[in-house]
Amino acid sequence: MLKVALIQQSCSADIAANQAESEKQVRLAADQGAQLVVLQELHAGLYFCQTEETGQFDLAEPLDGPTRQRFEALAKELDLVLVISIFEKRATGLYHNTAMVMDAGNGCAGFYRKMHIPDDPGFYEKFYFTPGDASGDLHGFHPIQTRVGKLGLLVCWDQWYPEAARLMALAGADLLIYPTAIGWNPEDDEAEKQRQLGAWQIVQRGHAVANGLPVIVPNRTGTELSPNGEKIDFWGHSFVAGPQGEMLAEAPADKPATLLVDVDLRRSEEVRRIWPFLRDRRVDAYQNIVRRFID
Amino acid sequence: MLKVALIQQSCSADIAANQAESEKQVRLAADQGAQLVVLQELHAGLYFCQTEETGQFDLAEPLDGPTRQRFEALAKELDLVLVISIFEKRATGLYHNTAMVMDAGNGCAGFYRKMHIPDDPGFYEKFYFTPGDASGDLHGFHPIQTRVGKLGLLVCWDQWYPEAARLMALAGADLLIYPTAIGWNPEDDEAEKQRQLGAWQIVQRGHAVANGLPVIVPNRTGTELSPNGEKIDFWGHSFVAGPQGEMLAEAPADKPATLLVDVDLRRSEEVRRIWPFLRDRRVDAYQNIVRRFID
Repeated sequence: MLKVALIQQSCSADIAANQAESEKQVRLAADQGAQLVVLQELHAGLYFCQTEETGQFDLAEPLDGPTRQRFEALAKELDLVLVISIFEKRATGLYHNTAMVMDAGNGCAGFYRKMHIPDDPGFYEKFYFTPGDASGDLHGFHPIQTRVGKLGLLVCWDQWYPEAARLMALAGADLLIYPTAIGWNPEDDEAEKQRQLGAWQIVQRGHAVANGLPVIVPNRTGTELSPNGEKIDFWGHSFVAGPQGEMLAEAPADKPATLLVDVDLRRSEEVRRIWPFLRDRRVDAYQNIVRRFID
Repeated sequence: MLKVALIQQSCSADIAANQAESEKQVRLAADQGAQLVVLQELHAGLYFCQTEETGQFDLAEPLDGPTRQRFEALAKELDLVLVISIFEKRATGLYHNTAMVMDAGNGCAGFYRKMHIPDDPGFYEKFYFTPGDASGDLHGFHPIQTRVGKLGLLVCWDQWYPEAARLMALAGADLLIYPTAIGWNPEDDEAEKQRQLGAWQIVQRGHAVANGLPVIVPNRTGTELSPNGEKIDFWGHSFVAGPQGEMLAEAPADKPATLLVDVDLRRSEEVRRIWPFLRDRRVDAYQNIVRRFID
């Protein structure tokens, strides 16, 4: 049994306050026995991708910047594994959306640079983030080894791509983890909002089923207003699903929450025995997956 | 709007009676305006894969055998597109689990030989069915063009594989279709049964989401007893989901049913505009999908 905590926050422009709140929630989770704590995507601040502003690159920090240092020390002090998410400055003019894993006293165990980058009205991420490198040491879809297992760490928009989940599973991931910042456009009607929320949960629960792995998804909550007056209602609903896609825990939409969930890692062993999907993959017939379209 | 009918049947050893019932339900669906009718997997008879018996190969028929001839004539008479499923004898000692599409007056528009073959206690399909060929003319994952669109026709166990759904979408499928025969082991407890049913629906609804396509799944119902005394309770729950994975219609578990569903094919166009997943695929980073495992 692995005790996992997901921290669903609302954020303001006050980075120090956001970080203090994250730290407070990590400490509370540790008090309750959490061994793995996962923060939401870009938890240090507002979701700044609502507009394209060059000034916002000031928010970025290097891989060994203050956010990593703060939470690395915290993971060490509390003796737990902690997943954080930063706006990474890799070089001048080269930025990534990067998640990192702090493995208790062992420091940073690895990082993952978001591979699939969205670009929709209100989510202008292609302006800010270079997609993660496809291959090479510590790039692409590589699970991160920690003392609680191999973490298949992906980020937000990656969650819509079965290929990413599968590649993590094939590389030996024990868990799939998606720090997220997704929400509703307040102008959509209620039926469309529910379809979007449903789709978001279903596709990730589907990755759990197809790969026989638990899925851990902390999401942002709260309404954020862009300088041009547009709003995103971040829809919360952070959740954990087991390896049959079964919902183990789910947070509300509209307020901060910490989910504490016992995840039975032995269950994947059982599920993959009764449904041995990896056995029957037609690897001889999948070569066109690397094509953009078959036309 | 495309009016789709899914026919969920219970079967007996009396093939003539099963076929007559299928025909009756197709006629009733046609009376109600169905343009596309889909029968369940191996609808002509009992699910014979509960045991391994060489005598059962007598049940197989060639691609142009009596089942195809009967339903080809019916599709022509009723002027609709009809998906059937047969136990195919391709050559002496070479059999497939094959779905076929009858395109109204145009006859057989194509066939699909099940690519992923299960083998579990009570589902000994690897004894009976050679997996479909990986490539070549009319083999592998190829949508079938009909007057109601390009049908991404797959069969049962294929439904657990995101690769199959993706390849159909990349090849231009307008719909995903899975004739199915899946059920519960009566010895499992109720919680496990519900997890299995949930997983089965979730993974296919996940394919709908990931690919922005409707999914059509007719499943068998009724309890079938094997000669060695083991039972399968086929769990019905035939369903149709829209391109956000939203459930459009669902049949009960334990009785025959015909689902008649209006599927809005324009909805895929809208959904793929707001969530353009195909735009952002990392085709430069998926090459390991063709590996069995990355070790």
